[in-house]
Amino acid sequence: MPGALLTDFYELTMLTAYLRRGMTQPATFSLFARSLPPARGYLVVAGVESALAALEALSFDDADLAWCRDALDLDDATTTALAELRFTGEVWAVPEGRMVLAGEPWLEVTSALPESQLVETLLLNRLTFPTAVASKAARCIEAARGRPLADFAMRRTPSLDAADAVARATALVGFASTSNVDAARRHHLPTTGTMAHSFVQAFASEAETFAAYAEDFPERPTFLVDTYDTERGVRAAIAVIREKGLGDVAAIRLDSGDLGALARMARALLDDAGLPAVRIVASGGLDEHKIDALVRGGAPIDAFGVGSQLGTVADAPVIDTIYKLVDLAGRPIAKQSTGKATWPGAKQVVRAGGGHDLLALRDEPVPAGGEPLLVPVMRGGRRLDDRPDPSLAAARRRFEADRDWLPAAARRLRDPVAPEVRITDALATLTESVRS
Amino acid sequence: MPGALLTDFYELTMLTAYLRRGMTQPATFSLFARSLPPARGYLVVAGVESALAALEALSFDDADLAWCRDALDLDDATTTALAELRFTGEVWAVPEGRMVLAGEPWLEVTSALPESQLVETLLLNRLTFPTAVASKAARCIEAARGRPLADFAMRRTPSLDAADAVARATALVGFASTSNVDAARRHHLPTTGTMAHSFVQAFASEAETFAAYAEDFPERPTFLVDTYDTERGVRAAIAVIREKGLGDVAAIRLDSGDLGALARMARALLDDAGLPAVRIVASGGLDEHKIDALVRGGAPIDAFGVGSQLGTVADAPVIDTIYKLVDLAGRPIAKQSTGKATWPGAKQVVRAGGGHDLLALRDEPVPAGGEPLLVPVMRGGRRLDDRPDPSLAAARRRFEADRDWLPAAARRLRDPVAPEVRITDALATLTESVRS
Repeated sequence: MPGALLTDFYELTMLTAYLRRGMTQPATFSLFARSLPPARGYLVVAGVESALAALEALSFDDADLAWCRDALDLDDATTTALAELRFTGEVWAVPEGRMVLAGEPWLEVTSALPESQLVETLLLNRLTFPTAVASKAARCIEAARGRPLADFAMRRTPSLDAADAVARATALVGFASTSNVDAARRHHLPTTGTMAHSFVQAFASEAETFAAYAEDFPERPTFLVDTYDTERGVRAAIAVIREKGLGDVAAIRLDSGDLGALARMARALLDDAGLPAVRIVASGGLDEHKIDALVRGGAPIDAFGVGSQLGTVADAPVIDTIYKLVDLAGRPIAKQSTGKATWPGAKQVVRAGGGHDLLALRDEPVPAGGEPLLVPVMRGGRRLDDRPDPSLAAARRRFEADRDWLPAAARRLRDPVAPEVRITDALATLTESVRS
Repeated sequence: MPGALLTDFYELTMLTAYLRRGMTQPATFSLFARSLPPARGYLVVAGVESALAALEALSFDDADLAWCRDALDLDDATTTALAELRFTGEVWAVPEGRMVLAGEPWLEVTSALPESQLVETLLLNRLTFPTAVASKAARCIEAARGRPLADFAMRRTPSLDAADAVARATALVGFASTSNVDAARRHHLPTTGTMAHSFVQAFASEAETFAAYAEDFPERPTFLVDTYDTERGVRAAIAVIREKGLGDVAAIRLDSGDLGALARMARALLDDAGLPAVRIVASGGLDEHKIDALVRGGAPIDAFGVGSQLGTVADAPVIDTIYKLVDLAGRPIAKQSTGKATWPGAKQVVRAGGGHDLLALRDEPVPAGGEPLLVPVMRGGRRLDDRPDPSLAAARRRFEADRDWLPAAARRLRDPVAPEVRITDALATLTESVRS
């Protein structure tokens, strides 16, 4: 579990200054994306459970305290205050799987100012990348139109932690499986994967390779057919599938070349061989646009493996998430820097009936037909037992319900248009009063 | 330390098939990037030490074995073989900080086939992102022309592990400091960072904020001046700096707006106030191109903080690294898939005198004036005591030496041209014999 030094140095200097001055008044911070990346019509919230777990675990151990005492020149009283510091606050969050738009808080923290400030870096880190991945994965789901998708990203994802986040975030929006064994075990996900080109090269022939694999793993063998000549590879797979009677469980995988044309060739050979149930899996540099082109082009591909483009969120790697002070001891606060203005006060996001959202103050009544997105998930620094179901299955149901709500223009892959976010009169009035 | 299940599922199926058949012949795999991203004239190798540490730690614990037995339907003999499996092989690597080009191995593994195959995913994961970050960070160093750079990426880096890799990889090419406290402690790096806008908002005024901060941290106070009106913020900082006599240690930070124009305004005010030694730090969405434009435009900025663009390698998030079987028990192996052909045999990369590299076979004599890049770093599964100095300081010296070797066309920020990689006659001949 992350310790208190998993943070930016300035959180510690600010923490120290607050503690020394007894500035422990309640502060509310709001975490949101200022804007959506150009190629996104919505974002899918992910990472909330990991963020809450990190808040619960937050503390300074002896080594941390020794480091801080030295680096920050702490007095005894402040050192003691750090040693006793835990996150004891309240958190409201948008449940994982739900969609948010520009300016809508994903999460709001209310706690004593030193605590709520300290957790800024940790919360931004825990939420931003999973949300970026889930949002891109959702586009892959759109493109695949019901065909199963597998997370193949582990090897080129930025780190092992990040690979775990990718496996979880992709499952959250409906990916069928992951190649990441550790993540599969941890999150109870189906695994996928069979053989590399090196495996084929380690045997004397494709025939021998496929026979060995079928012998060891007869339940769901997938034969990689493009190590040498793809057509020859498909024929070798067909021979083994027929010989071993695997026509109902086997698949072949294409990982290079013109995937659409090769899939058509392979499908014809398989059908001619009386193997209509053998599936074709494609991988190799895929993203939502390539999947979309293959599916729209009628390529007979049954499932896709998606790797590096997804695991690095290659088309939109940065989401400009921020964590802003919006209320200090009842005083609403807004930032007025050039181009970086924010709205004051604790918020609510209301998913209204008419295909748009309302950004409101938290204590405003929710209009009829509207649904509030932010709900309490933590009080007194502990996760609430009655918070929305944190399971991946529940998150996926929420994702699917919100997707049904989205206008078609927000769901399309190219030039999506996000639904409108309207500001309530009460929020507009408060903002005006703070800025004037 | 990572366990053996931090891997793609197919590594385990292949491992099982190899063990069942006694296919434990020595295999050499080569890890390299097929190509350089468009905006890169070179890559800076990073992550080697982390990769070697992961190899040393590799093993299946009881929970791993139970999972594998169930998922792979293992017999007792194979389960026992997994329980006893360690990485016992030999590794050659390009020392961290050195530059590599398309097709040049960063690392080569020779070990029994099951071991050398199993570590594919782990090695690719441990090396790809750190190298991508170091390579982008090197471009920031070029752009800054000697001005100090700070790693501000932690909050929007893909994970906590990834943030650690960013802090280390940026230090490796010469970043002066990091905001990441945990990474600073772990890698003995200078920390940086002072206050957020929320800190300024938590006090009654900028004057009060800056006075409090100067009182607590008089050794190196940096005042964030753009929370309200930047000019007013600079004047408030000047008043505190003069009052407390901090003219030799203080700095101000600009985080929004037209950084060049604001820096000029701030410099003029500081100079007029008799504070020529107060430094100006800039941050906010910076990358190598923005830094370059500011420096070339003569902006009086003394140091830059670089965050999200660097921490996600936003302009080139994917490097197409692969891990290919090149030799099996003395048999040279090459892949011939469409568009994915590879070179056979264990390699050497020679940095030749004439501004180009040679891709050679490992056992070829190194030509006069050439320097071999791949060196032994591990034997019998243990790091060699006499491997190249693994410290960050040594890596940085290697980086600086290789940078001096680079032609100007490879170092430029826009449309860089990588040095040429020539193939030796011996490698060409071997390749021909394998492919024919």
